[in-house]
Amino acid sequence: MAIFIKDILYLPMTGRGEFHHGSIRIEGQRITAMGDIVPKWGDEIIYGQDKCALPGFVNCHTHAAMTMLRGYGEGLPLEQWLQDVIRPAENSLTDEDFYLGNLLAHLEMLKSGTTCYADMYFDPGSAIWAAETSGIRGVLGAGLVDYDGRGEYYLREALRFAKEHENDLEGRIHFMLAPHALYSCSENYLQSIAHAAEETGLPIHIHVAETEIEQEACLRNHGKRALQYLDSTGLLRHKVLAAHMVHLDESEMELAGERGVSAIHCPQSNMKLASGIFPHGELKKHGVPIALGTDGAASNNDLDMVEEMRTAILLQKVAQKDADALNPYEALSMATINGAKALGLDDEIGTLEVGKKADINIISLWRPHFYPRTERHSLLSHLVYCMKSGDVHTVIVNGKIIVRERKCVNIDEGKLYQEVQHRAARM
Amino acid sequence: MAIFIKDILYLPMTGRGEFHHGSIRIEGQRITAMGDIVPKWGDEIIYGQDKCALPGFVNCHTHAAMTMLRGYGEGLPLEQWLQDVIRPAENSLTDEDFYLGNLLAHLEMLKSGTTCYADMYFDPGSAIWAAETSGIRGVLGAGLVDYDGRGEYYLREALRFAKEHENDLEGRIHFMLAPHALYSCSENYLQSIAHAAEETGLPIHIHVAETEIEQEACLRNHGKRALQYLDSTGLLRHKVLAAHMVHLDESEMELAGERGVSAIHCPQSNMKLASGIFPHGELKKHGVPIALGTDGAASNNDLDMVEEMRTAILLQKVAQKDADALNPYEALSMATINGAKALGLDDEIGTLEVGKKADINIISLWRPHFYPRTERHSLLSHLVYCMKSGDVHTVIVNGKIIVRERKCVNIDEGKLYQEVQHRAARM
Repeated sequence: MAIFIKDILYLPMTGRGEFHHGSIRIEGQRITAMGDIVPKWGDEIIYGQDKCALPGFVNCHTHAAMTMLRGYGEGLPLEQWLQDVIRPAENSLTDEDFYLGNLLAHLEMLKSGTTCYADMYFDPGSAIWAAETSGIRGVLGAGLVDYDGRGEYYLREALRFAKEHENDLEGRIHFMLAPHALYSCSENYLQSIAHAAEETGLPIHIHVAETEIEQEACLRNHGKRALQYLDSTGLLRHKVLAAHMVHLDESEMELAGERGVSAIHCPQSNMKLASGIFPHGELKKHGVPIALGTDGAASNNDLDMVEEMRTAILLQKVAQKDADALNPYEALSMATINGAKALGLDDEIGTLEVGKKADINIISLWRPHFYPRTERHSLLSHLVYCMKSGDVHTVIVNGKIIVRERKCVNIDEGKLYQEVQHRAARM
Repeated sequence: MAIFIKDILYLPMTGRGEFHHGSIRIEGQRITAMGDIVPKWGDEIIYGQDKCALPGFVNCHTHAAMTMLRGYGEGLPLEQWLQDVIRPAENSLTDEDFYLGNLLAHLEMLKSGTTCYADMYFDPGSAIWAAETSGIRGVLGAGLVDYDGRGEYYLREALRFAKEHENDLEGRIHFMLAPHALYSCSENYLQSIAHAAEETGLPIHIHVAETEIEQEACLRNHGKRALQYLDSTGLLRHKVLAAHMVHLDESEMELAGERGVSAIHCPQSNMKLASGIFPHGELKKHGVPIALGTDGAASNNDLDMVEEMRTAILLQKVAQKDADALNPYEALSMATINGAKALGLDDEIGTLEVGKKADINIISLWRPHFYPRTERHSLLSHLVYCMKSGDVHTVIVNGKIIVRERKCVNIDEGKLYQEVQHRAARM
């Protein structure tokens, strides 16, 4: 059965922020017609009055299962919190905890309009299991480390798993290789991963330059700053999703631009952990592609791309001392098409266009913060400065309605909350 | 009829962040019992399961009627936008526009848990008219300027109006004297206002040190920085609500601490307009009381205290390069009891205590971002880092239920939106 979104304002994110008014038809997984069209007999109709349609949000950096650690043992200094609280808690998590954490994350992301996310964590198997239930699109990467001497085993397993499951769930599942960070992977190991990327074509997802301490250690241990060091291992010859990218010097930004490294800005996490301020203006000047991520719920503490987009635009304006540092269309691009590009999925998602996969976010405009709206009271501004994740009314992923009138159709919320509480109480 | 909130988690904001579990009884305008109590025959019962109760939020700096200018003519440089877009638009607003703008603001604030606000704008009459409909509590100040030669008239009218309407609407309406700023009021005029404050006991609400330009002009014109200049006019001898307070030197912060000037942090407005970063840490060191405001919808662009609280805590952590710069309880205090103190209403509102006015915010915890919550997964953190304004379920102001299950009981939303659109289209 086809879906017909009737008479709606939509922002395709293919131009410069112009809204269109018309209808959108979806057959199978894809958008098959848009504009001044009429429904066919038997189409499921979604009425667009008082609503607008956007591409689904793309969250480019998460650790989804960490929702099980939301707000866990907070109030300690960062190092102590990681060492004494998070690591032991993570070691106690079971497969079922990973599954529940992933499903809770999917529920939260879908209800706030995120249709696709890039993850780095243990056990992508549980993420697929959860995505089968939830209906979300995911680009998964098993976190790779070798400080425990088992690095090659992890890499081999990640490659086997990726090969086996790429394009699972009607094409909703993809993979990246996810070396955790340059301080948790040895030089040899990063070279092995670069080699594996060469052989398989899998992109890389890695934490880079989140803190100044990380840069100092890199300089001390390798005689180079982070980007130059990563380049020397061969990693930057491949498609790289570099999360955080806060502490960079000019030469690193230039190198990132040359290599086409995608910088994933995680503003709320960087602010909460006092990591520093992402150098958006300079990275942009060097032509570095920029998208957005929430980071995990242990350090944000939610997975809300609406907030992330707003935080990014507000933070950059004040940090760059320029009220025009970022405009609303750029901020929306970072949350949609730029994310799709960073994941190498922009042929399929990130905009509303005929032929693309139908990953669509329908926003209810029947809210006080969306009024007035006229030609001069800009709806684009309202979407960036005023929209709440709770305004997400309907979400379509891969051509299927996944959130309908603010309810996730595939997840029993009450049951999930109960199970999450039950497991969490034992941690 | 009494209201009985049964078996709920509540955070009274009188201690250090401990939640209590029990019931809250409200008779007339006030909380009359709390804790392990039972309802009486005929009480209206609100069930507290999966919810928590907080004091209503206090928004200490708004220009409520400016919701009519939300997102209006955006994308221009600040000075040009104010001069060429906002001022002419403001001059075209009618009484009915003011009323509609106020009512729209009240709707937005109430639905996001704000039960009391401090306003500075033309025509407090329309604000009272709207508050009579909406049920909100307001501390109103007619903006005072004298660059048009009519300053004394405005002041006389403001005093007459305040005298006539103080404690209107069952005690929900109060007044301040609101000189707009030191650059829009002459020295003589500020002295007259200080004199009027002396005679009437009315507190002062004023914009202070929002931009560096303002400080430079003050130094050039008066040979003093803003706080010293205001002190020289006699204004700081009275209770002062100073909005923004971004650009201050050490001596000004010391003076603010000595005089007990309340600094109102408006983080989203300051970020959006690239005004600068509020010096929270230094003001705190000097003992300056700090509360929060949204500023008007033309420069924020919403009136959402949940976001303002989160933006404040995240911004201060990264700006002060200290993940402990502000803790969640401090952030919640800024949005509640500190606001009540700044308005001189802390005997009546700002905490949940027997004998206080019942201004209560009931939050639905049945949301993915509030799970898990256990002794170690802190609900206090969840409220500050994850809560959305849309989680506000029920709001009580002055002992009356004003928002019930996310609907404003006294406002016909559809009709209001239609009227707002109708007026806005003619601007």
